[in-house]
Amino acid sequence: MSEVERKIAEARRRADLNYFIYLNEGAARELESLQRAGRCGALCGLAVAVKDNIEIAGMPITNGAPYMKRVSDKTAPVVRRLMAEGAVVIGKTNMHELALGATNLNPHFGPTRNPHDPSRITGGSSGGSAGAVAAGMADLGIGTDTGGSVRIPAALCGVVGYKPPYGKIPTEGVLPLAQSLDHIGFITKTVADLVSVLAAAGWGPRELPTPKRFRFAVLMGITENTRHVEKAFWRAVAALEAVGGLRDEVFIDAGRYSAARAAILLSEAAANYYDYLRSSAEQMGRDVAVLLSAGAALPAVAYVTAKRVKEEAVRFFETLFKKYDVVVTPTTATEAVEIEEAASIAVRPKLLAYTELFNLTGHPAISVPAPTSGLPVGLQIAARDEEVLLAVAKAYEEESR
Amino acid sequence: MSEVERKIAEARRRADLNYFIYLNEGAARELESLQRAGRCGALCGLAVAVKDNIEIAGMPITNGAPYMKRVSDKTAPVVRRLMAEGAVVIGKTNMHELALGATNLNPHFGPTRNPHDPSRITGGSSGGSAGAVAAGMADLGIGTDTGGSVRIPAALCGVVGYKPPYGKIPTEGVLPLAQSLDHIGFITKTVADLVSVLAAAGWGPRELPTPKRFRFAVLMGITENTRHVEKAFWRAVAALEAVGGLRDEVFIDAGRYSAARAAILLSEAAANYYDYLRSSAEQMGRDVAVLLSAGAALPAVAYVTAKRVKEEAVRFFETLFKKYDVVVTPTTATEAVEIEEAASIAVRPKLLAYTELFNLTGHPAISVPAPTSGLPVGLQIAARDEEVLLAVAKAYEEESR
Repeated sequence: MSEVERKIAEARRRADLNYFIYLNEGAARELESLQRAGRCGALCGLAVAVKDNIEIAGMPITNGAPYMKRVSDKTAPVVRRLMAEGAVVIGKTNMHELALGATNLNPHFGPTRNPHDPSRITGGSSGGSAGAVAAGMADLGIGTDTGGSVRIPAALCGVVGYKPPYGKIPTEGVLPLAQSLDHIGFITKTVADLVSVLAAAGWGPRELPTPKRFRFAVLMGITENTRHVEKAFWRAVAALEAVGGLRDEVFIDAGRYSAARAAILLSEAAANYYDYLRSSAEQMGRDVAVLLSAGAALPAVAYVTAKRVKEEAVRFFETLFKKYDVVVTPTTATEAVEIEEAASIAVRPKLLAYTELFNLTGHPAISVPAPTSGLPVGLQIAARDEEVLLAVAKAYEEESR
Repeated sequence: MSEVERKIAEARRRADLNYFIYLNEGAARELESLQRAGRCGALCGLAVAVKDNIEIAGMPITNGAPYMKRVSDKTAPVVRRLMAEGAVVIGKTNMHELALGATNLNPHFGPTRNPHDPSRITGGSSGGSAGAVAAGMADLGIGTDTGGSVRIPAALCGVVGYKPPYGKIPTEGVLPLAQSLDHIGFITKTVADLVSVLAAAGWGPRELPTPKRFRFAVLMGITENTRHVEKAFWRAVAALEAVGGLRDEVFIDAGRYSAARAAILLSEAAANYYDYLRSSAEQMGRDVAVLLSAGAALPAVAYVTAKRVKEEAVRFFETLFKKYDVVVTPTTATEAVEIEEAASIAVRPKLLAYTELFNLTGHPAISVPAPTSGLPVGLQIAARDEEVLLAVAKAYEEESR
């Protein structure tokens, strides 16, 4: 049994975790034929789990919404690039409906379950891709991140989730949620794995400098963390100091930024899904229908004003990044909650408060596991410079494990 | 009496034309002191009429709205650049209130009157700057153009109005109307004058190639022209052919573009003037209050959709500009109307239908007088490449006069 077959078998064995909407039964054969043809490149045999809002020719796509189901006739360039290096897609992963939510409670395909405790959420909206990597069913997860949808489930599942700078990875062939905020992101077990994949695909350098001394700011005053998150986070901060980080604390007024991101998200999502809102609202999950309706009711003035706040946020962080090489927060303010409590409206900001900042600004941001026992906690690192970000994350990873 | 004094005297003598909200009595002295200091550059003594939505330190600014009146404490970079070469500002010009309209019927400062027939409009919203140049009160008019506000009054007053590519001239220190569409523009007597000013300020080349053979498209099907405009326009087209232009006719569906521009304009204007709409609506002209209220009532979905149509329009014209060096239309579908009829709602699209296209796409566009007798008519030329545009306009000017 090949490694790819073993992974697909594992996905089938742990179907209760509910990570895949579609499994690619032909994956092993595809790989063999690539190998026979001698066309298996730097990522030969890498098993990739692709969020089901990304097009792959010949495979079904749902966007987490059965009323949108069809078979794709093209492959998104981000996937094509990886396949060109020999990566194989083992399946399309379960997600929050339309990617419009952070819990991954999908009313049509069922909730994705946390591999560390199946009664808890994975977080979302790329929860299937994150869970698949965490549970050893894939080497690489591809997701999308409009408010934290790659970093949040990575944090809650104990893996690495990376959102490159806005616009760097082409979003062609990816169903849009909110075009001003949408990013493609990657999920791996480790920062080292991530760096290898990025380098092989031509999206990053092969070698990273080891940071000697760097300045970092802990962003404070954004929301309140659970005790479990708080403890793990400050351990992570200590690890950053241990690898040469000089710490400051910076209080920021994130409320305005959060409101601006919400206005942009809801306006653009409502425009993108306006026809479905009119034709299929009764088939939508209640949370999604409510958010799209709210978006459709927003005045243009709110959107235009939010876009101006977005520009302010960019300027604010650009200034901060003149002083600090990186800034850090917990990735989420809470560890994975029970599936039963996840639908509560109080959970949403606890998941999004830290990550959404960098969808608004477009800066690269990563979630790396924080040192803890029990449920995983993520450390979020953001920077202006992608190489600095990855170098700090890698040094931190080596220190903290 | 110096040339600058003579121009200010002329503005005072023809105060009935109503072009200036503020006259700079110190202009001649400023020029003398520049000359004495030996700091009078390439534009030494150029008399500039500046639209009253542009900041000049120490001068009052109203934006055509007395409820906004204050004294500026900074000078917009566009003006600073010209002053650095020895240009002197002779005054601030009357405009459509908030620049939100194309007739220049200002209920607070009175209508600007066409120098060719004072019972008719100049068009707007930069009508004061265009009138001042046409009437010999200024060598250069500075205006803003969000839907045609530089080109329209230039056409109706028989002078040249140029809107450079979006973003080329900094809009800092200029009160925004709709930031996605706002351009700064220049008004001169001739294309030759315009080219000299642009070169002296570092915004354009000193020498332009003489186009040997160029392809141009007449954009058709946009609106219906008056007989007077129609006749002058086709004479202008003949002049373009006489200087080497190879003509085609291209029908375009401009209605969607017009609607998109309106949605963007009204949304952004409502956001920019939201506080004034709440505090000063009863002091506003009825047309302006109605448009701002309409903008405040627009849904975000309409704005987001309009932004997508804007991107489509850019792609459409980019494709057109692969085939044609320039495209042409009349600048306006009507010659200057009587002040009494100008408030009619039917006049607005006749003024804006052609010009607003290039606010949506951001391409450079110019209005140059068309060969006619009686009331002036403008030929609009738009292009992808600014140098090609100016070269064709200059060759046309030499042929047509």
